Amino acid sequence: MAVEAGRKCLENGNIHASRVEAFYLGNFAGPSFVGQNHLAPYVGSALGVTGAPSTRIEAACASGGSAFFHAWSSVAAGIYDLALVVGVEKMTSQPTPKVAEILAGAGDLSGEIKAGATYPALFAMIARRHMHQYGTRREDLAAVAVKNHANGAKNPFAHMRKVITLEQALAGKPVSEPLTVYDCSLVSDGAAAVLLAPLERAAEFTARPVLVAGAAQTSDHMALDEKEDITTFPAVKLAAGKAYRMAGVGPGDVEFAEVHDCFTIAEIIALEDLGFVKPGEGGPYSSAGCTLPGGPKPVNASGGLKAKGHPVGATGVAQICDVAAQIRGEGGDMQLARHSIGLAQNLGGSGATAVVTVLRQP
Amino acid sequence: MAVEAGRKCLENGNIHASRVEAFYLGNFAGPSFVGQNHLAPYVGSALGVTGAPSTRIEAACASGGSAFFHAWSSVAAGIYDLALVVGVEKMTSQPTPKVAEILAGAGDLSGEIKAGATYPALFAMIARRHMHQYGTRREDLAAVAVKNHANGAKNPFAHMRKVITLEQALAGKPVSEPLTVYDCSLVSDGAAAVLLAPLERAAEFTARPVLVAGAAQTSDHMALDEKEDITTFPAVKLAAGKAYRMAGVGPGDVEFAEVHDCFTIAEIIALEDLGFVKPGEGGPYSSAGCTLPGGPKPVNASGGLKAKGHPVGATGVAQICDVAAQIRGEGGDMQLARHSIGLAQNLGGSGATAVVTVLRQP
Repeated sequence: MAVEAGRKCLENGNIHASRVEAFYLGNFAGPSFVGQNHLAPYVGSALGVTGAPSTRIEAACASGGSAFFHAWSSVAAGIYDLALVVGVEKMTSQPTPKVAEILAGAGDLSGEIKAGATYPALFAMIARRHMHQYGTRREDLAAVAVKNHANGAKNPFAHMRKVITLEQALAGKPVSEPLTVYDCSLVSDGAAAVLLAPLERAAEFTARPVLVAGAAQTSDHMALDEKEDITTFPAVKLAAGKAYRMAGVGPGDVEFAEVHDCFTIAEIIALEDLGFVKPGEGGPYSSAGCTLPGGPKPVNASGGLKAKGHPVGATGVAQICDVAAQIRGEGGDMQLARHSIGLAQNLGGSGATAVVTVLRQP
Repeated sequence: MAVEAGRKCLENGNIHASRVEAFYLGNFAGPSFVGQNHLAPYVGSALGVTGAPSTRIEAACASGGSAFFHAWSSVAAGIYDLALVVGVEKMTSQPTPKVAEILAGAGDLSGEIKAGATYPALFAMIARRHMHQYGTRREDLAAVAVKNHANGAKNPFAHMRKVITLEQALAGKPVSEPLTVYDCSLVSDGAAAVLLAPLERAAEFTARPVLVAGAAQTSDHMALDEKEDITTFPAVKLAAGKAYRMAGVGPGDVEFAEVHDCFTIAEIIALEDLGFVKPGEGGPYSSAGCTLPGGPKPVNASGGLKAKGHPVGATGVAQICDVAAQIRGEGGDMQLARHSIGLAQNLGGSGATAVVTVLRQP
């Protein structure tokens, strides 16, 4: 999958792999899922990249975003002129309990995980607290699920292309209350790839370049009990602030976004942490249809992690691909009306890593 | 261990963790050895680093060297002014067969590993071919072991402080012929840390800064059968050439080195690939005592991976620490007479990743 994605990307850029100056692989848990470690030169050499530094970046569910961030930093700083980023995860070859165990490794194993928490349980606590603190309703969570399922149905690359109703979402099989299966992202296999070059050289590779206007990676504590308020992710706020300043834009300028909806509550909180709405307003904003493709602030037009799928290490790179496709006007059935400035937000664990990237037409 | 090393490093630099602008963690297989993934913010936040990008780099046995390389690149390019690198591996909590299985993940799992090769077997093949091609003798391999054991005995941080004779080395219990236990590096627990800043700011943190004069990370195919000649690691040659050019020095200018002696044959090949001697001369050069602490080109004065130990993700960072300590004149019982220019060479797998770093007095 990683090689297929990387190869397509190089073909799109009309270049041979030997020209790649640095290769970054975003992957969360290849060694645990499939046994293979040292994945960067493994994938890189299969693509034809040898000689160049090939580096695997792991940052839990933000592995792909982090790999993109480091590749972009290096190109932006002038270290390399041509960097290839691939994100990949192969999850479905393991049985579900094993998948849950591997995913738990992204959390505080000796603390919250040992105490019995799984990721759905952690985000269920976050959801309950958000409901308690702001009056967020089950219907608000379900609205996110309904929208992302509808969006995913239009995405030929989506893992699940299935429209659901609000009633179905509300009646979903419980996973960790208040979260049902419809509130949880998918265990998926997938890969995505991006080619980075300085803007002044972009014309060599594409007629429709997309500019990375601002980007930031940030960190925070691993465990929820170390946080003052579990209804917000400080790392996301910090990353968004940095990325906005770098891009010279504010949240109001962002026309659409791909956000990290590992659980529906995470999309609602993302709306708040990214400054699209005030704290506590993410639920009503979603229920009001504001994040629909036709709304004022389309979010996850791709279907998001909920419907497009969440192959962990690929997710952050796929978000960049989806935002870039919109900016290029190549969104197909998903194409949005306003598409000059978009944002991607990738979250690791329950907020210990965040990556926010602002992209726009050059 | 990672936090202990990081904390000591920050204390030596007399700075608070909150001033760290970027944190890099070199770790090969924490998720497999201890279950915990997403280790960069886990270790970083325990150190007091939150907010800054915290990134885990995995490149098999070169994870530490690669983490250092990326931190250094970023500081050298002006992205950050203060970067902390920690390398860590906790290996001994798993039984030996499990350790072998985890280490095998650094090789081509679906090819050479599936065919039955373990790392000792791969390097045994390399040794046999080197012997066949160049007349390298068992005594040459044993000379490397004897030297590194003697050096390690003087290192207070070494895993094994045990002097051995040539006879003992030659009579070692076979692991994968011609390699015996004395030809194989140790399964160790350990951590190391380095603080990087621009040279013009180094005085804020230390009275004895060490300059990174040149550094390179390179890649190659994973499997031995994809290589034209298994008695050399092209990635090491390429990285050394780049690092030398950047530093404006040649192999003859390097006064001492820490090289990746995961197996004794790997040290002999390193001498050749780094250009210290011609291909095939590494064995006789070692047997002649040229790499002894009192010889013309001291190699692995720390005891190397053989005696100091090989906590995989820590190794590449520890090599930098050892070279830096020598340059500062802080080598203690290991201190070398000539110590103005040193080199560190870190190898991933059977050569799919290489990192070479040239350090010197500013």
